[in-house]
Amino acid sequence: MAKHVKPIDRGGYKEHPYVIPHMTLDEYGPKFKDFFTLKREKGILEAKFHTNGDSLVWSAQVHRALWQICTYVGQDMDNEIMIFGGTGKNWIAGQDETTTMSEEENRDWMIYDHMFYDGTNICEGFIFDLEIPTIGVINGPGFHTEMALFCDITLMADNAFIIDPHYEAGMVPGDGIQIAFRECMGLKRANYAMLMCEKIDAKKALEFGMVNEILPPDKIYDRAWEIARKLMTKKRAMRRTTVQILRAPWKEALSKELRFAFGMEMMVTATDKPEHTNDAWNDLTDKQRKNMAKNAEKMEKKHRK
Amino acid sequence: MAKHVKPIDRGGYKEHPYVIPHMTLDEYGPKFKDFFTLKREKGILEAKFHTNGDSLVWSAQVHRALWQICTYVGQDMDNEIMIFGGTGKNWIAGQDETTTMSEEENRDWMIYDHMFYDGTNICEGFIFDLEIPTIGVINGPGFHTEMALFCDITLMADNAFIIDPHYEAGMVPGDGIQIAFRECMGLKRANYAMLMCEKIDAKKALEFGMVNEILPPDKIYDRAWEIARKLMTKKRAMRRTTVQILRAPWKEALSKELRFAFGMEMMVTATDKPEHTNDAWNDLTDKQRKNMAKNAEKMEKKHRK
Amino acid sequence: MAKHVKPIDRGGYKEHPYVIPHMTLDEYGPKFKDFFTLKREKGILEAKFHTNGDSLVWSAQVHRALWQICTYVGQDMDNEIMIFGGTGKNWIAGQDETTTMSEEENRDWMIYDHMFYDGTNICEGFIFDLEIPTIGVINGPGFHTEMALFCDITLMADNAFIIDPHYEAGMVPGDGIQIAFRECMGLKRANYAMLMCEKIDAKKALEFGMVNEILPPDKIYDRAWEIARKLMTKKRAMRRTTVQILRAPWKEALSKELRFAFGMEMMVTATDKPEHTNDAWNDLTDKQRKNMAKNAEKMEKKHRK
Amino acid sequence: MAKHVKPIDRGGYKEHPYVIPHMTLDEYGPKFKDFFTLKREKGILEAKFHTNGDSLVWSAQVHRALWQICTYVGQDMDNEIMIFGGTGKNWIAGQDETTTMSEEENRDWMIYDHMFYDGTNICEGFIFDLEIPTIGVINGPGFHTEMALFCDITLMADNAFIIDPHYEAGMVPGDGIQIAFRECMGLKRANYAMLMCEKIDAKKALEFGMVNEILPPDKIYDRAWEIARKLMTKKRAMRRTTVQILRAPWKEALSKELRFAFGMEMMVTATDKPEHTNDAWNDLTDKQRKNMAKNAEKMEKKHRK
Amino acid sequence: MAKHVKPIDRGGYKEHPYVIPHMTLDEYGPKFKDFFTLKREKGILEAKFHTNGDSLVWSAQVHRALWQICTYVGQDMDNEIMIFGGTGKNWIAGQDETTTMSEEENRDWMIYDHMFYDGTNICEGFIFDLEIPTIGVINGPGFHTEMALFCDITLMADNAFIIDPHYEAGMVPGDGIQIAFRECMGLKRANYAMLMCEKIDAKKALEFGMVNEILPPDKIYDRAWEIARKLMTKKRAMRRTTVQILRAPWKEALSKELRFAFGMEMMVTATDKPEHTNDAWNDLTDKQRKNMAKNAEKMEKKHRK
Amino acid sequence: MAKHVKPIDRGGYKEHPYVIPHMTLDEYGPKFKDFFTLKREKGILEAKFHTNGDSLVWSAQVHRALWQICTYVGQDMDNEIMIFGGTGKNWIAGQDETTTMSEEENRDWMIYDHMFYDGTNICEGFIFDLEIPTIGVINGPGFHTEMALFCDITLMADNAFIIDPHYEAGMVPGDGIQIAFRECMGLKRANYAMLMCEKIDAKKALEFGMVNEILPPDKIYDRAWEIARKLMTKKRAMRRTTVQILRAPWKEALSKELRFAFGMEMMVTATDKPEHTNDAWNDLTDKQRKNMAKNAEKMEKKHRK
Repeated sequence: MAKHVKPIDRGGYKEHPYVIPHMTLDEYGPKFKDFFTLKREKGILEAKFHTNGDSLVWSAQVHRALWQICTYVGQDMDNEIMIFGGTGKNWIAGQDETTTMSEEENRDWMIYDHMFYDGTNICEGFIFDLEIPTIGVINGPGFHTEMALFCDITLMADNAFIIDPHYEAGMVPGDGIQIAFRECMGLKRANYAMLMCEKIDAKKALEFGMVNEILPPDKIYDRAWEIARKLMTKKRAMRRTTVQILRAPWKEALSKELRFAFGMEMMVTATDKPEHTNDAWNDLTDKQRKNMAKNAEKMEKKHRK
Repeated sequence: MAKHVKPIDRGGYKEHPYVIPHMTLDEYGPKFKDFFTLKREKGILEAKFHTNGDSLVWSAQVHRALWQICTYVGQDMDNEIMIFGGTGKNWIAGQDETTTMSEEENRDWMIYDHMFYDGTNICEGFIFDLEIPTIGVINGPGFHTEMALFCDITLMADNAFIIDPHYEAGMVPGDGIQIAFRECMGLKRANYAMLMCEKIDAKKALEFGMVNEILPPDKIYDRAWEIARKLMTKKRAMRRTTVQILRAPWKEALSKELRFAFGMEMMVTATDKPEHTNDAWNDLTDKQRKNMAKNAEKMEKKHRK
Repeated sequence: MAKHVKPIDRGGYKEHPYVIPHMTLDEYGPKFKDFFTLKREKGILEAKFHTNGDSLVWSAQVHRALWQICTYVGQDMDNEIMIFGGTGKNWIAGQDETTTMSEEENRDWMIYDHMFYDGTNICEGFIFDLEIPTIGVINGPGFHTEMALFCDITLMADNAFIIDPHYEAGMVPGDGIQIAFRECMGLKRANYAMLMCEKIDAKKALEFGMVNEILPPDKIYDRAWEIARKLMTKKRAMRRTTVQILRAPWKEALSKELRFAFGMEMMVTATDKPEHTNDAWNDLTDKQRKNMAKNAEKMEKKHRK
Repeated sequence: MAKHVKPIDRGGYKEHPYVIPHMTLDEYGPKFKDFFTLKREKGILEAKFHTNGDSLVWSAQVHRALWQICTYVGQDMDNEIMIFGGTGKNWIAGQDETTTMSEEENRDWMIYDHMFYDGTNICEGFIFDLEIPTIGVINGPGFHTEMALFCDITLMADNAFIIDPHYEAGMVPGDGIQIAFRECMGLKRANYAMLMCEKIDAKKALEFGMVNEILPPDKIYDRAWEIARKLMTKKRAMRRTTVQILRAPWKEALSKELRFAFGMEMMVTATDKPEHTNDAWNDLTDKQRKNMAKNAEKMEKKHRK
Repeated sequence: MAKHVKPIDRGGYKEHPYVIPHMTLDEYGPKFKDFFTLKREKGILEAKFHTNGDSLVWSAQVHRALWQICTYVGQDMDNEIMIFGGTGKNWIAGQDETTTMSEEENRDWMIYDHMFYDGTNICEGFIFDLEIPTIGVINGPGFHTEMALFCDITLMADNAFIIDPHYEAGMVPGDGIQIAFRECMGLKRANYAMLMCEKIDAKKALEFGMVNEILPPDKIYDRAWEIARKLMTKKRAMRRTTVQILRAPWKEALSKELRFAFGMEMMVTATDKPEHTNDAWNDLTDKQRKNMAKNAEKMEKKHRK
Repeated sequence: MAKHVKPIDRGGYKEHPYVIPHMTLDEYGPKFKDFFTLKREKGILEAKFHTNGDSLVWSAQVHRALWQICTYVGQDMDNEIMIFGGTGKNWIAGQDETTTMSEEENRDWMIYDHMFYDGTNICEGFIFDLEIPTIGVINGPGFHTEMALFCDITLMADNAFIIDPHYEAGMVPGDGIQIAFRECMGLKRANYAMLMCEKIDAKKALEFGMVNEILPPDKIYDRAWEIARKLMTKKRAMRRTTVQILRAPWKEALSKELRFAFGMEMMVTATDKPEHTNDAWNDLTDKQRKNMAKNAEKMEKKHRK
């Protein structure tokens, strides 16, 4: 007859004593410190992306960190809800011009490793790698807001906007934004928004059903925490399986289309050599440029070691 | 050479004389009298659920009667349109506390027979078992309004609301309400409504496209009959095949997800033992409690025989 | 506090004492006696269709009885497994020429009520109306064997064959047979079989994966009972939910295509006036003709009353 | 080793010198002159349907020309964007009563060749046969506006409306309009609109997300050209593959349902013999009747030759 | 009241006298003479691709002609069945080395116009542009046999084989062959065949259910004609709508995946610059090389004019 | 203007110097040593699961390690192909009776954390978390062979078999095995195999198309390495994107059904309390029992520290 071993009590859940332990926040937290401020209270993990402590400046290394964090957060059983958003005044403040690799000289890397592989894994990260409720916080203006649309609940600052700059930048909108737009505002509106690079302000985004609440920028994280705490009052398995049901249409949509459509985008990018880092994506203030330069210096120093 | 037999003329349609006759309203009507007031005029069947003549009080026996009526109404060729809704001031007035079976002692029954089997068959009943147009009438406040959303046309009283209390009650929203919400207001709004137990009033329900018309409670059945009579002016096969086309997305959605997601809900329910009859679902007035008690007495007397 | 009522013990399952009782075999059995021999032992229901005690002769009244039995068997909680098949030497022995209604004079009935409505409901009956495992027994030669393919397990007599005679008869194969063929032998083989009216014998049917076992005609029902008894050894909810999972692809396929494709078949039938009762479908022996005539007499007498 | 041949430079694109040349606007343009005014500037093709230079009057010959133009425009590599819409004050001014074939005497033609074949090919023409962005211009009132909904961007005159007259005319809405309505306003609103023949004005159409912009009738084509020129500023392969991604949901929806549902519509039409040319579809002014008569004369003269 | 115009009798069908006439075989036949031998008898069109009268040598111009013929054949109402296959001993004899354009200098053309646009349109041509039954004849060895798999019925010469050389040639199998393989032999076998470049001989292809009949090369076209004549014995609308039902799974599969997956193939091709014209694809005999050279000369002369 | 940083050359690929480095085999390898023997040569990773150096004995800790390895292997860019299979004579040798946790006392853990969460993540791990080709090696008899079916290529020892013991063990087959069976042998065969617990030997598995090659047990890993080396001869992005296309049907199937159906399985398990560790799953020899006991001791000692 079976002799039973005793479970380890992990607070909210039990664990078999012989399993390979998951990596803890203490272990993976430091890896992310250049890209994310991570804070956890009673199972609620707040992950705010940043560059040198201020609004994020987009870069190849951020592009990868975005799905890496989903993998690490997802495998950590001590995370029960994730609040995900930006830092400071902007969702994303621009594109980093100081730490780029030459796309000309590193074409294979640029098309497959950087764009296709990292890009598809970001969308899949939010939808497939996290068992737990996610709250996206669009804390201010910036591009790539579709990451917040992939969250289960989306809050939007009243001064933010949603836009797909692909067409304007000479690129095919196939990186998952087309799925987010279509699911969140319907086919007809989505197609127009993508072809015309429509700038959708908070009021319209709410009216279209793309986001769930509009808030002043300085209240938005408080509200996210309020929602998270409310969701935490219910039992763990219920909370986790609920979001798995709610995300089912996202899963099917991504499975059917994400990698394929991304391939179409990359086919054109690989042929046309569009200037990805065009002005449409950049709106950097002097202050941001300075911060970016400082960060580049810091990164160089760090990785030279 | 074939010798032909003569059809039986049934008013709106012909019938082969040797078929097994369907059960008529006279035969099945009396079975439902404790749960439904049934009235038929020129092919339009009005089915109003009730408890002892007033607003329905939810119970295990009602849960079963709801799909049973779809089966019986569906096989009766003399029904051409169904108006479906509540009685009195409420859509549903609360949960019956006087005729429950012990869930503790009857776990198998509770999970499979009562919840899963009856629950999945209700949704499938509206979508698969009825060939005819259906008009759902949300005559007043109450839960489980998703049954009216599954109807082809939905009318809503101006004082009614739509809410999914699952999460609040510690249950997974997998009983079909997630399909109704998603199809009727889009993914993003639906997921928020389910996680936050959002109370959607009539104005918002119309704006979201969840319902088709808002009416004062005392005019709502008149309008349902007006619509039904208008629909009846057209030919029978056209009317029936039209709704079969309109319901195709419902059919595909239910086929793909209903029983599966219901299983997820029940997995958690069977493990967590949530207090299903929690306060969120009950809002009974004294008058209702009295009516409920009276009904329990009547039922006991009836079934003791 | 809730006062609990006691469940009724129904042998294999419990029932709330106040539910509307389902119709029992004693009640619905007699309705079917001209079309089905029904026998039940410990939850296993054997339903053998017949005409006057011998192999079935196809007719409009049979066409309807086939889905009616699914509705009645499905709502009867005392049925736990259904064995479904033919009587005597043939699966179906031919088409009844003695009890037909004039298709010329009853066009509406023929297209909608007889063909479309009854035809779609047969396929849906097997897949949607029965919660329980089904074992199809192709006991000998005959057309419309696709009904057995829709069962969860299919046994085939070594002298039987599977054929789709639509194209040969000038009809579009859209009544569900196209779904059964495609799911059971793959797209390429199915399309050839339908265009070429390929006669698929038992050996080939097994090789193609259309059926599960080949048996001598006189052993086939014994084997069906053996399988049924084996399946009955396991618990009720497990048995029922298992087949719901196994049938999921059938449900999705029927939901997406059945009624629509049937409409295409009927569009052509309504326009072309094909001679539906053509020779391809009839292969009647003298003995069968005599039986059919005798039956017609009996039916006339019965319905004259 | 391969000796290379030189490409032909076609302005916006290169062509292998040995391919079979596509038909040019000069070749196919004249074929369409009775049905379409075609104008092309720098890759932007404006195709305005008309009858005798004024608003189109619907007819069997137009029904065919609508998909023929998609085929011809689609194979012409020199077309890069299509603007598609009506002429004069109306989108469509009514049904032609002067050039009809007898539906009674030509039933096969009416059901299959005219309705099913031409009808399905119109929807497929817009979605499958054109690689390029399409801008639909609903220039004024009229039926069959769903053709403009199938375009990638849809502009609507402030005095126009969208309506599905099928049910009112005794017909099943299965010709693709049900797909357009469902995709453009959601299931619940679409089903109501089809059952109730709801007249959706421009304001509501915009609010529902069915169309993208509302404009005064006299400014609408200017705006279409403005949009087209904006879209043309980007590279060719990007522009073309972008719309292929945007149209993916349309493609899947049409593939799954269009022909099948059309079959259901035709099944009923072939059986019921509805008066297709009923008043609901006709709203002709005296001026229009005169124009129509003049056109009939012209057509007769032309085809008598 | 309507005055009726008389239909034109076209043999098998009627036509409205005022429609824009389709292009006839006399008009489009000559365009194809360098690529296809076209022969039509009583509605059966035999289209055999060739190079200079012998087995086809693959080239950019052929790649386009393959979908062009589907467009032209499809719009010609006088075609009722298409037999499609190769000429001489081989299905395809190799790749043309004498009429290539420089892929280096014409990258945009190569990726988008030549590969993506022509390539996707070939698959769509067979499935979407033809209303009529198609019989694919794999008359001998050669690559790109998937075109014959897309036909409704597929005959295979006993010395032929089916192979996907993509992986071996350093290319992603995303041009539609992955759909054909998956639909015709199932997921597991298909994935192995594509990764391992498995050479599937006729016996195995039949056993896997990829093809319908194996024949000696010299009897294969006779059999195709025999089948075509058999199919022609039935009525036109039935024949055409039947294949539309049979092709439904192909349509859905292509709509969901073809263009997207092709984009993934091209993303890699555009990045990797694989040597597309590699040895894996070429197996030319001296005789073929001579024929190819002769053809190149002929083409040059023709197009120099 | 942008100043470029230099990529790090990682052998087969380039990496941006500032990305968060992935965990290397040196880092994660040791975590897995109790469950997997990991060996890597030139990008080919062989992962053989084991218990104490011999055939694996199934346990809760293994159940979790199986998806953990997919996560770790998947994020390691230095893995290019994975060979996955068992150790010694058996695929899996039985169930561990010495390290179990009490299911009675840890119901929440058992249903959600152990079964549902770990179970769904195993299937998703193979299909979603690995970008690279996978070769499954069924090296001998044992249950849960469906993990090898989820690999892109499957090799099977001639003495192995495939069986689904769910039904026999009183459990619902909803843990993903139903998807693997259906995709690999078709609906009809799969449903029979699951209801009847059919033991499918290697010959039949090959004939059904479930596996790709049969080999003697002592040659099977050599063959796997041979295939892996062959696949490695082609370029990296091509190899990786190819398997993403090949896996698309798996992705869609898992997204639509896996978690939902698993919920149905668990609903019944949570209600019925089936004896999961029943005899059907256990076939342990004395030698294995000794090994298991020794391992239990080792584990206890290790985790006591």
